[in-house]
Amino acid sequence: MGSNSFGKIFSVTTFGESRSAAVGAVIDGCPAGIPLIKDDIQKFLNRRKPNSNYLFSTKRKEDDICEILSGVFENKTIGSPISVIVRNNEKTEKNYENLRNIYRPGHADYAYQIKYGFRDYRGGGRSSGRETVGRIIGGGIAKKLLDFYSEKKNLPKIKIKIWAEEIAGIKSSIKIFEDSELPDDIFKHLTEIKEQGDSAGCILYCEILNAYEGLGNPVFEKLDALLASAIISIGAVKGIEFGNGFSAAALTGKENNLTDISSGISGGISVCSNHRKSASSSILFRIGIKPPPSIKIVQETYTSTGEKINLKIDGNHDICLFPRIIPVIESMAYIVLADSFLASRNSSFIGENSNERPFN
Amino acid sequence: MGSNSFGKIFSVTTFGESRSAAVGAVIDGCPAGIPLIKDDIQKFLNRRKPNSNYLFSTKRKEDDICEILSGVFENKTIGSPISVIVRNNEKTEKNYENLRNIYRPGHADYAYQIKYGFRDYRGGGRSSGRETVGRIIGGGIAKKLLDFYSEKKNLPKIKIKIWAEEIAGIKSSIKIFEDSELPDDIFKHLTEIKEQGDSAGCILYCEILNAYEGLGNPVFEKLDALLASAIISIGAVKGIEFGNGFSAAALTGKENNLTDISSGISGGISVCSNHRKSASSSILFRIGIKPPPSIKIVQETYTSTGEKINLKIDGNHDICLFPRIIPVIESMAYIVLADSFLASRNSSFIGENSNERPFN
Amino acid sequence: MGSNSFGKIFSVTTFGESRSAAVGAVIDGCPAGIPLIKDDIQKFLNRRKPNSNYLFSTKRKEDDICEILSGVFENKTIGSPISVIVRNNEKTEKNYENLRNIYRPGHADYAYQIKYGFRDYRGGGRSSGRETVGRIIGGGIAKKLLDFYSEKKNLPKIKIKIWAEEIAGIKSSIKIFEDSELPDDIFKHLTEIKEQGDSAGCILYCEILNAYEGLGNPVFEKLDALLASAIISIGAVKGIEFGNGFSAAALTGKENNLTDISSGISGGISVCSNHRKSASSSILFRIGIKPPPSIKIVQETYTSTGEKINLKIDGNHDICLFPRIIPVIESMAYIVLADSFLASRNSSFIGENSNERPFN
Amino acid sequence: MGSNSFGKIFSVTTFGESRSAAVGAVIDGCPAGIPLIKDDIQKFLNRRKPNSNYLFSTKRKEDDICEILSGVFENKTIGSPISVIVRNNEKTEKNYENLRNIYRPGHADYAYQIKYGFRDYRGGGRSSGRETVGRIIGGGIAKKLLDFYSEKKNLPKIKIKIWAEEIAGIKSSIKIFEDSELPDDIFKHLTEIKEQGDSAGCILYCEILNAYEGLGNPVFEKLDALLASAIISIGAVKGIEFGNGFSAAALTGKENNLTDISSGISGGISVCSNHRKSASSSILFRIGIKPPPSIKIVQETYTSTGEKINLKIDGNHDICLFPRIIPVIESMAYIVLADSFLASRNSSFIGENSNERPFN
Repeated sequence: MGSNSFGKIFSVTTFGESRSAAVGAVIDGCPAGIPLIKDDIQKFLNRRKPNSNYLFSTKRKEDDICEILSGVFENKTIGSPISVIVRNNEKTEKNYENLRNIYRPGHADYAYQIKYGFRDYRGGGRSSGRETVGRIIGGGIAKKLLDFYSEKKNLPKIKIKIWAEEIAGIKSSIKIFEDSELPDDIFKHLTEIKEQGDSAGCILYCEILNAYEGLGNPVFEKLDALLASAIISIGAVKGIEFGNGFSAAALTGKENNLTDISSGISGGISVCSNHRKSASSSILFRIGIKPPPSIKIVQETYTSTGEKINLKIDGNHDICLFPRIIPVIESMAYIVLADSFLASRNSSFIGENSNERPFN
Repeated sequence: MGSNSFGKIFSVTTFGESRSAAVGAVIDGCPAGIPLIKDDIQKFLNRRKPNSNYLFSTKRKEDDICEILSGVFENKTIGSPISVIVRNNEKTEKNYENLRNIYRPGHADYAYQIKYGFRDYRGGGRSSGRETVGRIIGGGIAKKLLDFYSEKKNLPKIKIKIWAEEIAGIKSSIKIFEDSELPDDIFKHLTEIKEQGDSAGCILYCEILNAYEGLGNPVFEKLDALLASAIISIGAVKGIEFGNGFSAAALTGKENNLTDISSGISGGISVCSNHRKSASSSILFRIGIKPPPSIKIVQETYTSTGEKINLKIDGNHDICLFPRIIPVIESMAYIVLADSFLASRNSSFIGENSNERPFN
Repeated sequence: MGSNSFGKIFSVTTFGESRSAAVGAVIDGCPAGIPLIKDDIQKFLNRRKPNSNYLFSTKRKEDDICEILSGVFENKTIGSPISVIVRNNEKTEKNYENLRNIYRPGHADYAYQIKYGFRDYRGGGRSSGRETVGRIIGGGIAKKLLDFYSEKKNLPKIKIKIWAEEIAGIKSSIKIFEDSELPDDIFKHLTEIKEQGDSAGCILYCEILNAYEGLGNPVFEKLDALLASAIISIGAVKGIEFGNGFSAAALTGKENNLTDISSGISGGISVCSNHRKSASSSILFRIGIKPPPSIKIVQETYTSTGEKINLKIDGNHDICLFPRIIPVIESMAYIVLADSFLASRNSSFIGENSNERPFN
Repeated sequence: MGSNSFGKIFSVTTFGESRSAAVGAVIDGCPAGIPLIKDDIQKFLNRRKPNSNYLFSTKRKEDDICEILSGVFENKTIGSPISVIVRNNEKTEKNYENLRNIYRPGHADYAYQIKYGFRDYRGGGRSSGRETVGRIIGGGIAKKLLDFYSEKKNLPKIKIKIWAEEIAGIKSSIKIFEDSELPDDIFKHLTEIKEQGDSAGCILYCEILNAYEGLGNPVFEKLDALLASAIISIGAVKGIEFGNGFSAAALTGKENNLTDISSGISGGISVCSNHRKSASSSILFRIGIKPPPSIKIVQETYTSTGEKINLKIDGNHDICLFPRIIPVIESMAYIVLADSFLASRNSSFIGENSNERPFN
């Protein structure tokens, strides 16, 4: 499996660079019979794409209209690979020639050069945020699969709630789900940062509700390990912690045993419905996201020949990755859940077709 | 690839339960010609095994003598799978019968029951810390591979330094590498916790020096994503952050761009030697580790039929996973590096056999 | 890895149904720096596509113009996944409605129905010969990779020669490489079969010249096992034999030892250049190909409800898969060789950068 | 996944050389709850091991006693990796020193040398027939899984019948299942070959009865492609054909459509129960097996420095691989079926838990 694929059974392969003809994904291993139309994916993509309502997001024009090329017939999946593309149709052909030999600060330009000996320097090439379009295509289909199964088995649908706890270094007293909900102090601070041509980070919190029990595997494919890999693989993510996370390190065993289960994952396996007969629990994790590296401030940097220069990056860029990164995180979580779910159907032949175990 | 394997080219498959006949690993994909003797692995295992010098570790008797079953001839690897086992030879056969129907607090007993419909309840079965023996076998061999290559190419050897920054909620002003280096306040607090029959967590910091540049891949197999998956898959790890981690979320882009490279990973690719012509940089990450769940204090828990009971867990257990977890983390890091290294030899045909790119 | 992918390092994922919007492939794991333009792929596709010069091939109009969507910049691969599509642009929208509930003889209609519970019945869906477009895209790129490496290392280029030994049950005294070379007796017999609305099989012979030594692995990934899997996976192939094949079963050990090496594979590993200091040897295999199942003769068959009916299949179909299947077989062989080549660069650290071993 | 693993969900990793401490296998992905005791595997191993009843097999003493190291508890699988080893306990330590620099005719000695630059020359190392012990361990467990499922679902058990059609170039008028059933002419001819110190090949026929329908996938993982790869990967196999195989090439489409389904595989998918309401059909294939290369006749060969020498190989060797190869072929077929079966449970969400589709 190439390094651009994620998932072993529900497998998502993404492709495309910032300025290639298209970006997209091939989803292999999706069972036949899942209802799927283009709009199921487009809705997800629309939440990610630059949007005039997103005050602190790029004003670049990206239509991001998806096209399903294969794998769907009469609005249902047929068990064949589902390929979906989105054309990279920025109207004005921007000239990137000046960046050919420059390593932008905070970007992966040097890393790609040293790894490949050659790089597509236009818009960051494969390291561009545009690669997340493929993740969203995969996530949108994963969600359809899980929703369909939940409905069929009369289970509550899996829901993923993601909110900002902190933006630009300011903690929020409320959960910020939408751009329109920014508290005054954060709004004001972000406005200042924007005026300075600078950018801001954020800390997000993720809650997965109604996950099936029994997902994930002992040892290397623990559900938290899979989620960590999926989420840390998103460009700007710098850290992840599950349940009480780093703060668990300051607890004693007695204290932690009382709360540990609250991450919704035990021994790498989801235990979300509550076997202790009290309120149901969720899978919980927190994510640290760095500020976007593209800023309008003049910065010192280096050329490929080691010359020191001053660089000012023009163009439209995100001030903060909230809220555009949220559907990307959701997508990766849905892909992990869908893949783990299909894998887990073969965990045991005990209790199959009964209610002893969650699914088979 | 089964869920008990890690690595795509340098592939480590582990097996064994707490009370099965043996634990071990099969390493497939190790190139021929690497010097390897039993003692290379045994040295690593000895750092992990219960040890009378480790004051806050279990006093259980585990000899952990490894045996190489295949893949090595005349003290060199031959390109065949290397299989290594360690017999589970606890002398007194402990009776676990009383735990057959009990879900211990903080353990994965319930999770395994719901996932498999059946479990080996003796010592936690596959969820036992004994599974880490297989990781150490893999890590020991990965280290040999990397050391051999570095020597051959006249590169400095990759080194991994891991120390505790915080134990039992107490931050340390020094880097604690060894059990013998515990500061007085931590030593005293751990002694109290031990006397109470309780346990403690810790926060570790990891520095990888001299990693080759160009390891890791764009998108899903970023080096940090691989490390996150490898490290979070170790039983007690609750969180991981790279470089400045969560604190990057409070910086502006301008501030973060100046320091971001200091995680030693850029766009998912290692950039550890310093292209900016200043001091060399390392791969850096911080790990949060929970207190061991097995404590000697009576705790309330549940049976498999939902009955509430009081449980006191006897036997010898670790008070704190520091220092025994350190070689396990090292091993996972070495496995990630070895696998990424072999994969990266095919990243590019540009600059091969030259000094333009780090290796081929 | 999904079931629509082939190759572990040089990984080809194909997608598309007979009547979906497009067919295509994503190639992941191709090193950066390989020269690649659209025409490299198009040339291969043109040999596969229906062609007015192919007398016994379908007269369907398929333009099969490929488009590279990603992974190539300034006419070189960049190490990112290479995605290529071919639109399914048959002009006249054929009506397949009458086949919705019919299982055509010799086709996989029933198999798909039972496996998926649902199928795209238009033109065979995923079981259509159009899926081979994706194989050719992968093969064309694999060939470029191998050619580039051979040139760089000053090795002779790997060549694949495929010819028919037998067509429609008539053995040929010459090697038939091209449609234009059909011997008179075969030409006459094929013409009769065509006039009857029937179709014909063939036996092909494949010779791979100048393959690097050391490709393939002991045990499950023997080079012959990989080739067998690759070639048998092509729709109409019914059998494969290597070197002297089935006839080796009638030899004694003494007799066979003298000739066995002539398959160019020993213990699953290529040994093509001749270590015995005589003439160089090649990888050799023979393939049996069934007649295309779509014929114009009325046949008895069944509907999905088990009703017996008479069916006449209209439209344009191949009389014989020779010569259109040849580039498909070549492509699969190139993909196997490219993938094995990249994998084998990590077989050993002995003799690296020397001439002792073929490559590193 | 390393090259010593087979199967994506039911994954078998084998290890061990002819003269290493042990050979064995790790089976990952076997569902929990399958009854399994050591004897289930031992029975299979006993059919493969040298046996005083096998007249034309090696008289070497190999006890081949297996030990289950992990993955089984209270005689049932627990969902953890199942590791099984067989010690290589030949009593008299044979001296292989004389073969250190010699390439035996018909063996893979030169191939291993060129691939790895170094080899374990004792008994062929990894290329020895002893590697098939690991295949049998995997096959024995795969059979238990399938038997258990069939019983649970009230389906007839899958059976695999393998017989010789031809031995030492003599076709048999009866199906030869056992060593004791050799027809007089074959017995006499084999005796002569044995007396001459030579060896013989054979052609085997394999019939899989009661395979579930719907196994295998379109395109690269067709059930016949998987079987071809599995069977050709067995050391001495030179060719494989499915159903009417190579002879289909001489039929017309009309003729072949009437019989094609009789291979039990259509479009790569098993269709074994008969949808045409007549007698049930099976999966059918034929295998060509070369004579063992180790013979007692003096042969000319080469040393690693290219010197021509005369070599006589002493020791006990098989005259013909029939019947010892039969359980190896069976094992590979069971592994393919078990792996395809688990994968196919996710093919479709249509008809699940109903009788419309064979399993879910």
